[in-house]
Amino acid sequence: MVNIVDRETVLCISLAARPSNHGVRFHNWLFDHYGLNYLYKAVVPVDITAAIAGVRGLDIRGAAVSMPYKQDVIRLIDALDPSAERIDAVNTIVNDDGLLTGYNTDYIAVASLLRSHDVAPEFHVAVHGSGGMANAVVAALADHGMRGTVVARNETTGSALAQRFGWDYAAQVPEGAQMLVNVTPLGMFGDHQDVQAFSDEAIARAEVIFDVVAYPVETPLIKAARAAGKPIIHGGEVVALQAAEQFKLYTGVDPSPEAVEQAEAYSQN
Amino acid sequence: MVNIVDRETVLCISLAARPSNHGVRFHNWLFDHYGLNYLYKAVVPVDITAAIAGVRGLDIRGAAVSMPYKQDVIRLIDALDPSAERIDAVNTIVNDDGLLTGYNTDYIAVASLLRSHDVAPEFHVAVHGSGGMANAVVAALADHGMRGTVVARNETTGSALAQRFGWDYAAQVPEGAQMLVNVTPLGMFGDHQDVQAFSDEAIARAEVIFDVVAYPVETPLIKAARAAGKPIIHGGEVVALQAAEQFKLYTGVDPSPEAVEQAEAYSQN
Repeated sequence: MVNIVDRETVLCISLAARPSNHGVRFHNWLFDHYGLNYLYKAVVPVDITAAIAGVRGLDIRGAAVSMPYKQDVIRLIDALDPSAERIDAVNTIVNDDGLLTGYNTDYIAVASLLRSHDVAPEFHVAVHGSGGMANAVVAALADHGMRGTVVARNETTGSALAQRFGWDYAAQVPEGAQMLVNVTPLGMFGDHQDVQAFSDEAIARAEVIFDVVAYPVETPLIKAARAAGKPIIHGGEVVALQAAEQFKLYTGVDPSPEAVEQAEAYSQN
Repeated sequence: MVNIVDRETVLCISLAARPSNHGVRFHNWLFDHYGLNYLYKAVVPVDITAAIAGVRGLDIRGAAVSMPYKQDVIRLIDALDPSAERIDAVNTIVNDDGLLTGYNTDYIAVASLLRSHDVAPEFHVAVHGSGGMANAVVAALADHGMRGTVVARNETTGSALAQRFGWDYAAQVPEGAQMLVNVTPLGMFGDHQDVQAFSDEAIARAEVIFDVVAYPVETPLIKAARAAGKPIIHGGEVVALQAAEQFKLYTGVDPSPEAVEQAEAYSQN
């Protein structure tokens, strides 16, 4: 099939050391759906400084940024949206006629899901994990007005993350946790796919369960929460919504929930 | 139509201040024809230094270079093929794992056409024009063993070009010219499209006529030469062959003459 690109086609890329095909399929499907002359291409950057120079020099409209570049790009761009400034991590760069602004659509997506799922700000949260994505999640929870506990095996990163938002750190899930959030790889395809990120007892005591793992969506935690009749928020929602936010930033078009769902289904084929 | 690109897709671009759609259509058609996971995109560079940094940083396999960048890129790349070194102008960059080599496929294409059309090296040539493309054409003619006269209104550039290859300069077409080559915009779509680049008398005296103008292929010069029953080489051959040479450099696949013809026909739609 001859790819339909011409001199007007607007180019968006992803910059990741180990790119998935999710963004490529998601965005190209939506570009087509909305009749936009855009093209999305995954790129493995040789050197992040040269890659960002390339975004400028080749007039690339937008770039998704994955590990390990989310902090590195900050010194290479011109401005930070509050979503990225809040957590000191950029996952999306938008190029407005040479002015590069960094956003964090993971933060934006989580914040939006807390609102759309009507999560009560007074719930006490237990967040399992202390990596980069946990940072975005805790920031969104805190900005939703919530307080909680960071639960992590790594005390150094766990207590640093807790401290940053005035939360508590603990090695174990506190008994009073009303919301459970998993931001570890537990339940993800791979070595830990059979591991349930929170115990049945913690699930039984909680009011809502949120698993950020998206591959698969049906993690042991999500299955156990569903079996226990608890409201859930799953990682597929985060992935689709953060990509939809990127799409909106790149194109100015706010995709409908139905279109996002179809694009997401197409992306997982 | 959803463009089919994935994380393995190899990206090639063109860098031109005013890009045409020719390269985009030609290369994407051939990529599809040969089942190659490649994509070609025209880019208007904001800044040529940043653009070449982008070719490196984004691991772009190849870049076609048009006016006004053909000399500028030389200081930005790592090596020159003899085709580019001969005329101090690059129209194609190939990226081999970070090593950028500059080629000139215009030179390669003209040299190849002189061979395939069995142009007698002993013919005296009159070349009309003294710009960048004229430089490539005179170099190829000289390297084919030919001597001749550069005919140009601009004496400074005309005599400089002639001198570079040990040729003569003249303001008028010399009577003894056995081969006539037009490398001016005379006959090209636009202000000069009705102008015949050489007189009927010069055509009548010549053995072979070569018009580098490709848009349209049927220039007043080509029509007059055909009417006079003279062998011709036309600009469409140069455009297709130089692009086929680029395709070979980017992919390692030598496209068949039939495929090049089909790609060229598709490109002109």
